[in-house]
Amino acid sequence: MATAGKVIKCKAAVAWEAGKPLSIEEVEVAPPQAMEVRVKILFTALCHTDVYFWEAKGQTPVFPRIFGHEAGGIVESVGEGVTELAPGDHVLPVFTGECKECPHCKSAESNMCDLLRINTDRGVMLSDGKSRFSIDGKPIYHFVGTSTFSEYTVLHVGCVAKINPEAPLDKVCVLSCGISTGLGASINVAKPPKGSTVAIFGLGAVGLAAAEGARIAGASRIIGIDLNANRFEEARKFGCTEFVNPKDHNKPVQEVLIEMTNGGVDRSVECTGNINAMIQAFECVHDGWGVAVLVGVPHKDAEFKTHPMNFLNERTLKGTFFGNFKPRTDLPNVVEMYMKKELEVEKFITHSVPFSEINKAFDLMAKGEGIRCIIRMEN
Amino acid sequence: MATAGKVIKCKAAVAWEAGKPLSIEEVEVAPPQAMEVRVKILFTALCHTDVYFWEAKGQTPVFPRIFGHEAGGIVESVGEGVTELAPGDHVLPVFTGECKECPHCKSAESNMCDLLRINTDRGVMLSDGKSRFSIDGKPIYHFVGTSTFSEYTVLHVGCVAKINPEAPLDKVCVLSCGISTGLGASINVAKPPKGSTVAIFGLGAVGLAAAEGARIAGASRIIGIDLNANRFEEARKFGCTEFVNPKDHNKPVQEVLIEMTNGGVDRSVECTGNINAMIQAFECVHDGWGVAVLVGVPHKDAEFKTHPMNFLNERTLKGTFFGNFKPRTDLPNVVEMYMKKELEVEKFITHSVPFSEINKAFDLMAKGEGIRCIIRMEN
Repeated sequence: MATAGKVIKCKAAVAWEAGKPLSIEEVEVAPPQAMEVRVKILFTALCHTDVYFWEAKGQTPVFPRIFGHEAGGIVESVGEGVTELAPGDHVLPVFTGECKECPHCKSAESNMCDLLRINTDRGVMLSDGKSRFSIDGKPIYHFVGTSTFSEYTVLHVGCVAKINPEAPLDKVCVLSCGISTGLGASINVAKPPKGSTVAIFGLGAVGLAAAEGARIAGASRIIGIDLNANRFEEARKFGCTEFVNPKDHNKPVQEVLIEMTNGGVDRSVECTGNINAMIQAFECVHDGWGVAVLVGVPHKDAEFKTHPMNFLNERTLKGTFFGNFKPRTDLPNVVEMYMKKELEVEKFITHSVPFSEINKAFDLMAKGEGIRCIIRMEN
Repeated sequence: MATAGKVIKCKAAVAWEAGKPLSIEEVEVAPPQAMEVRVKILFTALCHTDVYFWEAKGQTPVFPRIFGHEAGGIVESVGEGVTELAPGDHVLPVFTGECKECPHCKSAESNMCDLLRINTDRGVMLSDGKSRFSIDGKPIYHFVGTSTFSEYTVLHVGCVAKINPEAPLDKVCVLSCGISTGLGASINVAKPPKGSTVAIFGLGAVGLAAAEGARIAGASRIIGIDLNANRFEEARKFGCTEFVNPKDHNKPVQEVLIEMTNGGVDRSVECTGNINAMIQAFECVHDGWGVAVLVGVPHKDAEFKTHPMNFLNERTLKGTFFGNFKPRTDLPNVVEMYMKKELEVEKFITHSVPFSEINKAFDLMAKGEGIRCIIRMEN
């Protein structure tokens, strides 16, 4: 390509300071260094994690910064040593990576790569500790190695999943974070048997994806639990068959669920990050075989507490990160699930805005409206 | 048999009150009722659980009572409706049962039978709420449905495992509780991969059996953790390759183990019941794939506490009961493991006394001497 090896000037949505609307700026994007890839982003979406670090309440503030990590794009050029990707490849950037060489990458079970595991504090590239974005020579920092709120971005090759070029990027872009996280929590970790009963705590995008996973796995009862009853009707599309609003009951929700299911649910998936919901999700599973899976990220001071007999009675508690999917190895297969119509992605996409109106996506999320808002980079 | 349908007079070791030496008495043992079996006990062993309920500290005291639940014997007669067992069958009584009809028995995963799950407070038979033991017409209570400190005892058929008649009862009698519990915790629940590293918390009979299970599964490093260093040398026979005494370190034992293993053990099995050891056993497993299994029974007021990120980093915590073995279905296969010399039972048996000296077995356990003491009913 004509741009390979050169600085590209393009538009990016820059967060100059915490909580202030993003500003579309012209930025310079340096060429990819060794083991890096420069990607033209076509579609990106907004995820709670972007908002969380943009608000930077209690987090290390790293500004100015380009957020964004759910996206789809096309490789523009590759740095030295990159053999698995070439210009023109369709890809999903991923906020956590897969080096394929560390003990985690070599384990069949883990996706917590030693080299490229998510790092929310680092605003620079691994190889040289520098940013590839600048304005007038001053660095603009990266976010989780992706920074997809830019027409072009640079990523470590280990954070890029090559996908089927026939997959529509305006749809599958949402698979690079939240949807896969919830889906994988169900199909890879909770693994509900056919005909089983599953409780889903929290009916945001991740929880709905977990419900979708339970539906795909063949669960026959999927109970959605949320404090916001407005979410219930929509959640039926994702397989939820019943709903519990903890506000409607004057006893602990785990007791409500145990009564509804004659002893407890077979599987539960916690997608809120609230510590009480985590404890409830564990305590509502059936003794003898129940498995609870934690997905939501807790407050740093949270403490999980339960009576150990709840374990001794043959319950299992597991946590998952990115649905236990290995980014490069497994994400292409998630895209194939969509291509084979096993996984329905369209229903997660409720809004769409042009890049120039990216702040509208933030407004929608603040209001709790919709599930995913696609940001179109080109029009 | 000449005794079938009649009351049998025989010797039993009766606990008249909490903590007082057992007294060998002549008791009357009523014939088995519907779905019950009367068994002539040939060998029994003493387990901590007998001592715990005999001491009755903080437990509901049920006296006078006949303790004992690790044993081997021969069916003397069967009650109405019993078709799976016949006089002459070699059997192991089990403190928890398997009705084969409830959801737990029908689940491939659970052994927590709804009908016959261990009940330490009940001193009578399920069918009529009465004891089958008496002295001068006054009832002597049962213990966990087994009461094997008697030459004859009556059990629900669901609490009796029929085993290979060629198996030596003086050896395999120890498989009916603690040894199977530890063994199963490793081979059925922790399932250490070949070449993996396993930590065993507590090197009593159950912990040593868990080490034996890890050895059988092919673990290459088995780290024994105990506050009593006198147990370490003996534990080598059960596969332990290294030892940690928490007293020798001025930092938490989970940190010691994480350093020893470059990030954590692959599996851990907690066999003490101490809540701090439970938390340590969980926090010492490797992120990404580590599995901790709780076996030891905690204090009723114990609280398991940890930071939920320890789960989110892809660790698993499970509890087990009786090593997840189904008593009737699986215990015969554990006996076969011994017959095929895969499982070495002899090394668990360190002492042997005649029935008349049963209190010596209690003294040995109080002193922490040896692993299992066999009590010979006939000589």
